[in-house]
Amino acid sequence: MEFPSKLLEKAVEEVSQLPGIGKRTALRLMLHLLKQSEEQTMHLATALTKMRTDIIFCTSCHNISDKEVCDICENPLRDHRTICVVEDVRDVMALENTQLFKGIYHVLGGKISPIDGIGPSQLKIQSLVDKVKNGEVSEIIFALSSTMEGDTTNFYIYKQIKDYNIITSTIARGIAVGDELEYADEVTLGRSLVHRVPFENAFKTI
Amino acid sequence: MEFPSKLLEKAVEEVSQLPGIGKRTALRLMLHLLKQSEEQTMHLATALTKMRTDIIFCTSCHNISDKEVCDICENPLRDHRTICVVEDVRDVMALENTQLFKGIYHVLGGKISPIDGIGPSQLKIQSLVDKVKNGEVSEIIFALSSTMEGDTTNFYIYKQIKDYNIITSTIARGIAVGDELEYADEVTLGRSLVHRVPFENAFKTI
Repeated sequence: MEFPSKLLEKAVEEVSQLPGIGKRTALRLMLHLLKQSEEQTMHLATALTKMRTDIIFCTSCHNISDKEVCDICENPLRDHRTICVVEDVRDVMALENTQLFKGIYHVLGGKISPIDGIGPSQLKIQSLVDKVKNGEVSEIIFALSSTMEGDTTNFYIYKQIKDYNIITSTIARGIAVGDELEYADEVTLGRSLVHRVPFENAFKTI
Repeated sequence: MEFPSKLLEKAVEEVSQLPGIGKRTALRLMLHLLKQSEEQTMHLATALTKMRTDIIFCTSCHNISDKEVCDICENPLRDHRTICVVEDVRDVMALENTQLFKGIYHVLGGKISPIDGIGPSQLKIQSLVDKVKNGEVSEIIFALSSTMEGDTTNFYIYKQIKDYNIITSTIARGIAVGDELEYADEVTLGRSLVHRVPFENAFKTI
């Protein structure tokens, strides 16, 4: 693309480095900004800069936070001995939305994925293992994605904590609520059969 | 969505004001930035700010530019009496890519679209009419989108310049090169038939 302006070209170049945004989309976004007030772009730029420089990660669970210790870890009403292991902040937000989990979280920051060059040392695994070793944990719930990378990460952590006397579990895999059976894949359907739930418990929500 | 950080929430809010970007996509983009170096976000924010504040529009053709008069309008080798009327900078870039147009452009900045609240006065129509009135123009080529809004804009301008002695035309509508006939809509196919081209001229490129 030949741009009529270096400033526009530079902006398009920077924006198109974001995942899933190509040069055409970036150009469309920039033309939108040019039609809006200058303030809107200033607010956008300031919000990005402040987020990147001022955001911190909770020293306990490694979730994104504005404080040293996040609201969830700080909350005395939550069960600090039950830890739910998740990949990133989006999973914490999704689980919090269910309003069914009263423990605390441990945010790994990703999954083990050799193809993306992510090994165990780049994830917050050691601090979780340390919590178990120090006897701070009674139960660990693995809530990673049901993918090869998620399962690899689950097993890697499980191997290091299985000799300590704690309860471990993973969230249930099965047919999503509202889904039709005929469209379910065989692995999911198989697991939902093997891990069937006593009928009288099936509709419990807590 | 409940965010664990006000800074993250603010950034997601600003980014999701861009067209076609929802809150989930914005959150994904922000998590990407948080994984990259601080410099990347700084460069992005600076590029956006500089583009919005420093970009100017060519005083002659109203295209985006870094200078008072853009490279195309400044070029003495181009035919300044042949003006191609387009909607925005993307159309200029697309037409320049063909390397077939040697005239100059006039960028309207949009199309007349009552549903979006865009009337003729918000577009750069008057300066085009003035150029015609002042006898600066020999030929006008309309190259707007082939939509209701594009056609309305074409006719609005045409009515004001038709009494001056200039050549007017619109770019050809027809079957796109490489397209199969059976998938073409009947309006396009009909127009391509009515405006058929003498065979000996059909494969000319200039």
